[in-house]
Amino acid sequence: MASTSIWRNALGIAVFAWVLSYCVGQARRSARADDVLPSWNDGPSRRAILAFLAAVTDRRAPTFVEPSRRIAVFDNDGTLWAEQPLYIQLQFAIDRVQALAAQHPEWRAQEPFKAILAGDRQLLARMSQHDVAKLIAATHAGITTDAFDRAARRWFESAMHPRFGRLYRECVYQPMLELLALLRANGFRTFVVSGGGVDFMRAVAEDVYRVPPAQVIGSSGKTHFEIRDGRPVLTKLPEVSSIDDAQGKPINIHLHVGQRPILAFGNSDGDLQMLQYAAFGEQPHLALLLHHDDARREYAYDRHSPIGRLDRALDVAAKRGWTVVSMKTDWSRVFPRAPGAGRMLELR
Amino acid sequence: MASTSIWRNALGIAVFAWVLSYCVGQARRSARADDVLPSWNDGPSRRAILAFLAAVTDRRAPTFVEPSRRIAVFDNDGTLWAEQPLYIQLQFAIDRVQALAAQHPEWRAQEPFKAILAGDRQLLARMSQHDVAKLIAATHAGITTDAFDRAARRWFESAMHPRFGRLYRECVYQPMLELLALLRANGFRTFVVSGGGVDFMRAVAEDVYRVPPAQVIGSSGKTHFEIRDGRPVLTKLPEVSSIDDAQGKPINIHLHVGQRPILAFGNSDGDLQMLQYAAFGEQPHLALLLHHDDARREYAYDRHSPIGRLDRALDVAAKRGWTVVSMKTDWSRVFPRAPGAGRMLELR
Repeated sequence: MASTSIWRNALGIAVFAWVLSYCVGQARRSARADDVLPSWNDGPSRRAILAFLAAVTDRRAPTFVEPSRRIAVFDNDGTLWAEQPLYIQLQFAIDRVQALAAQHPEWRAQEPFKAILAGDRQLLARMSQHDVAKLIAATHAGITTDAFDRAARRWFESAMHPRFGRLYRECVYQPMLELLALLRANGFRTFVVSGGGVDFMRAVAEDVYRVPPAQVIGSSGKTHFEIRDGRPVLTKLPEVSSIDDAQGKPINIHLHVGQRPILAFGNSDGDLQMLQYAAFGEQPHLALLLHHDDARREYAYDRHSPIGRLDRALDVAAKRGWTVVSMKTDWSRVFPRAPGAGRMLELR
Repeated sequence: MASTSIWRNALGIAVFAWVLSYCVGQARRSARADDVLPSWNDGPSRRAILAFLAAVTDRRAPTFVEPSRRIAVFDNDGTLWAEQPLYIQLQFAIDRVQALAAQHPEWRAQEPFKAILAGDRQLLARMSQHDVAKLIAATHAGITTDAFDRAARRWFESAMHPRFGRLYRECVYQPMLELLALLRANGFRTFVVSGGGVDFMRAVAEDVYRVPPAQVIGSSGKTHFEIRDGRPVLTKLPEVSSIDDAQGKPINIHLHVGQRPILAFGNSDGDLQMLQYAAFGEQPHLALLLHHDDARREYAYDRHSPIGRLDRALDVAAKRGWTVVSMKTDWSRVFPRAPGAGRMLELR
């Protein structure tokens, strides 16, 4: 009986291994075919991505990278989803001020809450870092992590982008969804490394990017653990723990991933250090910057933008030969076809 | 051509799906068979584990848990490997003092370095928290993360346990290796949540536990990012960033995993909050405590031990009906059979 079961298992494993190797082979072949990255136009960016994938997955090539070392990191705001006219999380914070105003009568006399409650959209553009920190602390802290997660999920269900007539969660870039899926089909683990708050991003990252919570890295605040009414709860505190921007990105990648990525994709100066960290070393690597140069379909901004400023990183990219992706010429499509298509299918 | 390739892909995927479901079925059946957890004696602990696995993987049962929610967290020192007579990382720090002494003549006049260099093993037992912090800072900081990783790996290659005649890295518990592998075969992601330093643990966790760096959580210090001589490097600073012990464990699980575990395994009061965090909620869960009651094969210690004190957690376990695993009666074997067997094979 036991030995029958051993043989059955062995047979199952052998067939499994054969089919697995067949499928991996197919995936590798199809990575070179015309049917991958359909929303990317043929050009140097798409070719650089496909050449890189071919190089690191070809077991006979000196550029081969073991699957366990295939780590890809992506900035979020402006790289995976739209960040104009305002960071999506900032809009969430503003909407939360409206929602919580009844419990905070003192806000009617305090900036930045007063201006937000008066609907002064101009003020937001000139809000100081101090005001933003106050706004985030007031709307993101003093609440359990479970309750915050529910609030963020509820907000994502209906909050609409002011220009595109689709939910914020649907303002993700279709070419990037295709790239994430292609990387995973080629054995990569994909991480989101966002300047935004990790708890906010996790409320939506699994649904829209197929990135599990443990592979989402972001800015974070301190939390407090206690047993309250017999229940173990974590409460979000107003103190900042980590700002996941600029040099904070490689620092957090080391802390959370513990391996140097071989592919990094960003769009602003805040991503420079993450790209420098990845685009170095003996093993092959690919550093990419998305250039927003498409005012018609999305937005055009770079060196002087208050949001998503891309200045020094553009100079370093030119000097180092990094791949600068033009939204206008490299992408045949920006957003998913049907609003409501925020959920995606894996390649396999 | 394209349509042939589509059909080939579809066939491959169909066969793949069938074999996958066959193998998963086999794994599930074999989880109930006698050939899993071979180093666990039949008894309430082994039965509780197998019953829990059957409950969360049976798709028709109300206790079914989606694979994406199957998170298991393990303390390290005293749960996955031996922590007596001294935490392994503390022995590493002590050996590093010896190795670095030539570069630090001032240590000959400073405690705790002076006593360590004099080989005073008694002093170590009465070292204050302040001395330990000084020791860790002096031996773990002021070095790049890459250089530290190399130093830790080198140490693990030859550092021997003083009693068991095997490498420290081979002082892992065979029954726990089997449990980790069984959980993964049942769709769990396994995380190590150690009071030890995350950089130290990662140097060995993938080899001995098959846990990738991104699934290792631990205490951590601050790091600094810079481009030095054209190379992007992270340097370890002496400032502590997070102590992954007691309430620090659920806090770090939230930060790094972002999901509530459904299985938690610890062995000391420092693991209490992690077990409380996991052993709660609507979904099924399993909380386990390893009780070191085997002076003959390993060590016997609990309520009054300076290392791995198990006192309050034992009371809570009794009250809450958590599973207390007896090393003496529940385990037929403590360490892997052959020294040198620190590497393990997956179940599949």
